[in-house]
Amino acid sequence: MAQHELGALLLTTEHDILYLTGFLTRFWQSPTRPWYLVVPARGKPVAVIPSIGAALMGRGWIEDIRTWPAPVPGDDGVSLLAQALKEVGGPVGIPSHLETHLRMPLADFEALKAQTQMSFGPDHGILANARAVKSEAEIAKIETICSVAGRAFARMGEIAGEGVPLSTVFRNFQRLLLEEGADWVPYLSGGAGPDGYDDVISPASDTPLKAGDVLMLDTGAMKDGYFCDYDRNFSVGQPSQEAANAHSRLMEAVAAGLETARPGACASDLWRAMADIVGGGETTGRLGHALGLQLTEGLSLIQADETELKPGMVITLEPGIETVEGRMMVHEENIVITTGAPRLLSPLAGSELTVI
Amino acid sequence: MAQHELGALLLTTEHDILYLTGFLTRFWQSPTRPWYLVVPARGKPVAVIPSIGAALMGRGWIEDIRTWPAPVPGDDGVSLLAQALKEVGGPVGIPSHLETHLRMPLADFEALKAQTQMSFGPDHGILANARAVKSEAEIAKIETICSVAGRAFARMGEIAGEGVPLSTVFRNFQRLLLEEGADWVPYLSGGAGPDGYDDVISPASDTPLKAGDVLMLDTGAMKDGYFCDYDRNFSVGQPSQEAANAHSRLMEAVAAGLETARPGACASDLWRAMADIVGGGETTGRLGHALGLQLTEGLSLIQADETELKPGMVITLEPGIETVEGRMMVHEENIVITTGAPRLLSPLAGSELTVI
Repeated sequence: MAQHELGALLLTTEHDILYLTGFLTRFWQSPTRPWYLVVPARGKPVAVIPSIGAALMGRGWIEDIRTWPAPVPGDDGVSLLAQALKEVGGPVGIPSHLETHLRMPLADFEALKAQTQMSFGPDHGILANARAVKSEAEIAKIETICSVAGRAFARMGEIAGEGVPLSTVFRNFQRLLLEEGADWVPYLSGGAGPDGYDDVISPASDTPLKAGDVLMLDTGAMKDGYFCDYDRNFSVGQPSQEAANAHSRLMEAVAAGLETARPGACASDLWRAMADIVGGGETTGRLGHALGLQLTEGLSLIQADETELKPGMVITLEPGIETVEGRMMVHEENIVITTGAPRLLSPLAGSELTVI
Repeated sequence: MAQHELGALLLTTEHDILYLTGFLTRFWQSPTRPWYLVVPARGKPVAVIPSIGAALMGRGWIEDIRTWPAPVPGDDGVSLLAQALKEVGGPVGIPSHLETHLRMPLADFEALKAQTQMSFGPDHGILANARAVKSEAEIAKIETICSVAGRAFARMGEIAGEGVPLSTVFRNFQRLLLEEGADWVPYLSGGAGPDGYDDVISPASDTPLKAGDVLMLDTGAMKDGYFCDYDRNFSVGQPSQEAANAHSRLMEAVAAGLETARPGACASDLWRAMADIVGGGETTGRLGHALGLQLTEGLSLIQADETELKPGMVITLEPGIETVEGRMMVHEENIVITTGAPRLLSPLAGSELTVI
């Protein structure tokens, strides 16, 4: 903050505030109330939050907690926040780059600018850079939820097979994740079809699995606020040669990624190592990303991302490949960068496609 | 839009875009990619979205779908969006009021303003007002997920009782919701303690339930994109007189709310009808809210909200009461406003606290 001559950071989103305060709650699901954290260049943070959150915020390390009985139409915390910012002094940095947003009504932001007459600008990625390198405690949490998902994937045969609708598989896989210890399953996607799937972001259909389908489930399950994010592919009955070959190729790409993932290498180096194997050339899309408090956060394994890898970064290796026209397979593993070879947080899949 | 002299709306958030396009996906969990919908005052909407979403968006009614291979650092869809807005013409309305935010990096919003040189201002609540009155199809979806939660609550005795840690109850209740047909459980909160709980937004602790505890679970489960949002209180063994009385009082407040919930009454009338019974006077907080695509959306049952009730509005009645110093009980039901008496979407709780 000193380097960028910032007097304060203004944070408004769930994960930035969780990272700095430990304020973990599913209450963010409600859009009604805004939450603010002011981080001064010197001194302690000030939480400016709805009174309903005071008790939970008070259990953490934040001492200066100022509340209002939100929702209050007309002045929903804006004058209280303006006062806190004026005490601390500006200029005020706000996360403004890719992947960020301001979780505050635009009209309230305009009112805040008018009331404070302070200068608001970007935070220069200060918070994202801090979050990018995980502590041992954070890595342990991610490893725990990766293990939970690993145990759930190992039980796939209990819930999936020929004739089972994909929507039932989705529902029951979430149940397995909870049984194995997930606190919550914020994300589950997947697909199924012969030689792969055509889409990985659609809700599950009620179409029953058929012999020869490749079934993929990709989960972002959560424990203690931290995510895993990896997938597994399964063959319903014996796989086609195309699917078997694609899986082998994907695992080769993962191996190349593991080989390249060293401190000093760039995100784009990792992308290239995997893109060279799965093909697609320069038009190949994102082949992984960082993760932690969010399902995806920080660096992207794309050609244009020159972010240097550092020990403590947790990332996904997520190569995808076209199997036949209009169909694909995607594989994903979670790793942590160390001073030497990366450590796998997800249990590395085998070289052959698992048959269910 | 004509009344407010707007040329276009710019929509950026999950539920506004879902409402107008049917684009239902859990992929919003990833913050990496922005999604834009431009709604012209005349003519058809234009979706400006990452290419990964083109197939799913194409399954709906939107014909003009423009994509870019996000994430693209430097120009992540901004010039494509600017072009679409310039074609349509401004001024551009953006949801800017309470409960809204702009899901777009602030730096990109500044670039958009610079590139278009158009006027950006509030949407005057156009979209929120449209969403507030539900169609029969929407009400049916909310009723379906309310029934799912009702069946899960009816099985509470299977998973909760003396000695069971609260965290285990939370985990297993999510499992019950999935078994009963929820697609997903975005929200679950609750609490437990003698004569009530001190907090309703904290994560579940590992503390085992004790005889005499009041246990409350409040769920926002989802099916086909629509939420239920209601809770149930249970007594672990026989309830104290305080807890039994509080429950009776809460059900009286709900009855008063049901009596008042008629077209033409205001949100504040509903608040007052319940506040008069649960006490607390003018300092009483929010006693309910609207719901639908979001766990909470639109009107609030607070003293300051003069929104007039209309047939088709779906709202929660959520009175809370202090039982003993520092402890409370909260009860919640979901209803739809009709031309006559409101219709309950949640199965109305009994007048006596359920013993488990």
